[in-house]
Amino acid sequence: MTHLPAMAALTARGAVQRLVASQIREVANAGMNDPAILPFWFGEPDEVTPPFIRDAAVAALARGETFYTGNFGLPELRETIAGYLSGLHRPTAADEVAVTASGMSALMLTVEALVDPGDRVVVVTPVWPNLTEIPKILGGEVVRVPLAFGAAGWTLDLDRLRDALTPGTRALIVNSPNNPTGWTLDAAQQRAILAHCRQHGIWIVADDVYERLSYGDSGPALACAPSFLDLAAPDDRVVSTNSFSKSWLMTGFRLGWIVAPPALMPDLGKLIEYNTSCSPAFVQRAGIVALRDGEPTIAHTLARYRQARDLLLRELNALPRVVAAPPPGAMYAFFRVEGVTDSLAFCKQLVREAKLGLAPGSAFGPEGDGFVRWCFAAGEARLADGIDRLRRFLAH
Amino acid sequence: MTHLPAMAALTARGAVQRLVASQIREVANAGMNDPAILPFWFGEPDEVTPPFIRDAAVAALARGETFYTGNFGLPELRETIAGYLSGLHRPTAADEVAVTASGMSALMLTVEALVDPGDRVVVVTPVWPNLTEIPKILGGEVVRVPLAFGAAGWTLDLDRLRDALTPGTRALIVNSPNNPTGWTLDAAQQRAILAHCRQHGIWIVADDVYERLSYGDSGPALACAPSFLDLAAPDDRVVSTNSFSKSWLMTGFRLGWIVAPPALMPDLGKLIEYNTSCSPAFVQRAGIVALRDGEPTIAHTLARYRQARDLLLRELNALPRVVAAPPPGAMYAFFRVEGVTDSLAFCKQLVREAKLGLAPGSAFGPEGDGFVRWCFAAGEARLADGIDRLRRFLAH
Repeated sequence: MTHLPAMAALTARGAVQRLVASQIREVANAGMNDPAILPFWFGEPDEVTPPFIRDAAVAALARGETFYTGNFGLPELRETIAGYLSGLHRPTAADEVAVTASGMSALMLTVEALVDPGDRVVVVTPVWPNLTEIPKILGGEVVRVPLAFGAAGWTLDLDRLRDALTPGTRALIVNSPNNPTGWTLDAAQQRAILAHCRQHGIWIVADDVYERLSYGDSGPALACAPSFLDLAAPDDRVVSTNSFSKSWLMTGFRLGWIVAPPALMPDLGKLIEYNTSCSPAFVQRAGIVALRDGEPTIAHTLARYRQARDLLLRELNALPRVVAAPPPGAMYAFFRVEGVTDSLAFCKQLVREAKLGLAPGSAFGPEGDGFVRWCFAAGEARLADGIDRLRRFLAH
Repeated sequence: MTHLPAMAALTARGAVQRLVASQIREVANAGMNDPAILPFWFGEPDEVTPPFIRDAAVAALARGETFYTGNFGLPELRETIAGYLSGLHRPTAADEVAVTASGMSALMLTVEALVDPGDRVVVVTPVWPNLTEIPKILGGEVVRVPLAFGAAGWTLDLDRLRDALTPGTRALIVNSPNNPTGWTLDAAQQRAILAHCRQHGIWIVADDVYERLSYGDSGPALACAPSFLDLAAPDDRVVSTNSFSKSWLMTGFRLGWIVAPPALMPDLGKLIEYNTSCSPAFVQRAGIVALRDGEPTIAHTLARYRQARDLLLRELNALPRVVAAPPPGAMYAFFRVEGVTDSLAFCKQLVREAKLGLAPGSAFGPEGDGFVRWCFAAGEARLADGIDRLRRFLAH
């Protein structure tokens, strides 16, 4: 008998097979085609992109802007992002900015630039699963540092994080304001983390997508969460990724950006070429207009979400078994339901029996089990209907 | 004295630093802002996307289609791609199709799915550099199998390719019709390659972007290059990637697709989530209309390019020192200039002295040195002007 070599399986490589698939989608698939279901499971604003932003894309299409742009994006968009960030944070130059085909792509590109097989990558959790999975695509070793939940809401044990950031650690990935908890780093914590990472040459990858959805009561003219870009110099090992999706209601445009040290930019340019090459020019034109004229949109969104947050938190805490803390940022309530140990099973039951679509906390890591995520980017009537369904469900 | 640990450099990891940067861009940067330069260096159609395709995107924006779609794309687009491919090739089901944010993204996702560090990946060359660089981002070992240039144009030594496809090779990447040479696999060669790869469990990744730009004289109703999708079964280890960019003049839309075995799709879905999540819905709507109503566009484009190809080849071969073979596919003349050994230096000199922008053959690998690429997706007057410039340059 001849001995044939072992045949490669008809599947992806093991590292990709082992990537976590979305538990949110698993719950959603259970009720996707049932119009009776009221969904709050996805992290997406409920409003269409404002007309003035869509109009900019339409005008560019009419002008025939249907060709490649440079890998880093239209110079005018890079300048506009740099000017916008310079108003919020430290002075930022256009050549520190790369335009990307979504905030997701910004994160993947950053990880591709930095993470070698076997590299240690520390991630603050619970967190949307994409952040812990992308380093694994590159062979990175992900170490989770969990937040704690208590009377003060979700908090970070800074010493525990510093202990995890051992010498030789390649990168820290942190999403603040955080999806799903709303937890937000303060400036003192950022200063301590930056000092530690400077000492050991550790990269900080800051997913800043929710920075404009910050409910701090100090009330600056431009609401914005504390950012490593307030503290770090351009040549610090700090990469900030961002997106037009949440603040400007542009999820469907798939547009984001990276701020990175100038020394990293040539290599990021190569990776953009080899991943997506560029974003559509007409989408980038919409981004320019969003940044220039979008502050009223952000103010409107923030006011709506603050009201939604306050309503939802008040109602949730009036329910039996529910323990919820007001999130200081982002657009989610991440609350515990006492007695629930398997939040995936609980959320599937909610879909089936209460026709209510929420996201299981375990979708965000084992630290999230027993919790449920509710996206409150929604109107009051819909939220009230959802609360009614949850109340009835918990009552029987 | 204390001994500090070695500090990580402020640059990307070594594998990314070693990725080739575009020599085409290096030449283009030398003359980007000089309006006197006549450029044929980029591989991009010279015509704006047809109005009926742009209109579909505009209508979707007007309808407010500004939300996420599923990772695999709109069901209607997947169905439309499957129907289109079933007309050209074997019957293809919608669940074998994934929509991607560009043909580039389709290739990167496929390589992410398949290539582990150290995996052997064979690529037929010369080829656009992206194909040889993306496996290196994942740590793959790229082995080049060069085509030969002779009286019959560019040809493949099938035995040499089979010898390179040793047992344990993970994947063959082949771009046919090929950028830059126009070389096109015939069905007999594809059958032989498929048989060999089946025997050893080697994945075939076919970059089919130019399949509709095929100048064969047999003249089928639907012009199309031979495809592995004509021969392979859905559960063969064959992945076909494609793009709307070239055939439908949609480079600026960044839309493409993957056809893959159903067993690979769940893992591809995870990778799409973690790379770009989805493509804009309004861009996908344009793709649906392009496929449904775009055959006249392809016929128009093909007729223009055939005329441009014939003109350019005739004129090139009338020049001293130039040896050019008519490309059977794609949209490039890839010709030798006798006496040129450093095509990068030659192309830079052409830009400076003749104000003519061509791409150096060495941009496509060492096999391409001594050659020059001319994209003929252009009108006759522009091509004639370019030829005049080259003639004058070669005469002095």
